[in-house]
Amino acid sequence: MSYFYAKVVDYGYEEALVKTKEALRVVGFSVVTTIDIQTNLKNAIDKDMKPYMILGACNPHYASAVTEKEPRIGVLLPCNVLVYVNDDDKVEIAAVNTLETMQAVNNMELAALADEVNNKLMEAIDSL
Amino acid sequence: MSYFYAKVVDYGYEEALVKTKEALRVVGFSVVTTIDIQTNLKNAIDKDMKPYMILGACNPHYASAVTEKEPRIGVLLPCNVLVYVNDDDKVEIAAVNTLETMQAVNNMELAALADEVNNKLMEAIDSL
Repeated sequence: MSYFYAKVVDYGYEEALVKTKEALRVVGFSVVTTIDIQTNLKNAIDKDMKPYMILGACNPHYASAVTEKEPRIGVLLPCNVLVYVNDDDKVEIAAVNTLETMQAVNNMELAALADEVNNKLMEAIDSL
Repeated sequence: MSYFYAKVVDYGYEEALVKTKEALRVVGFSVVTTIDIQTNLKNAIDKDMKPYMILGACNPHYASAVTEKEPRIGVLLPCNVLVYVNDDDKVEIAAVNTLETMQAVNNMELAALADEVNNKLMEAIDSL
């Protein structure tokens, strides 16, 4: 199992950003952070790269449940969804696989929640 | 090895936020995202909890290097540093352990970079 779940889409980057946010909303996640890595790296170190946006997705019920069970889990939140232009110049959308990242935490109480969150993120990606 | 590196400090939450951002700046990381989980959960689901802020820290040189070596690594970026009030009502600061999270990625080219990033984050936490 990989640390991400990805899908290549056949529409443009800007459209992918809009559709991804909407797909996340449909499964109960809102985008609480947006990091435009392409612009950040251009401004900071004059690096040229293809569009690369990291969306931080959060569902308040899950965030509440996991922080209660595992207080320091915040170092692994929110759930990131990457929208970027890949090496083949295709737009790809990738969600973090929470089952993989939660393995580092080693708290069995989180396993069921991580599985639920994963299913919702995969549902969102599949709908794109 | 744990998925975080933490320290309890004996000053207040607001001061800890300022000092943490400054400590990250000193080791070359800027805070690119700030998620106030306490306020978010209060607004979204009327949940009461103690202060809990997730700072997303990014160093453009490392971000550039890791995205080149592993394009989908963005689902695990930026490096989070949590500032929160713990169960003992103490302010605690916890940084993600990138060596642990990178294990899910299984790309040996990232190991040295993850180690460097980890050392810088630990240096920042130790300085608090």
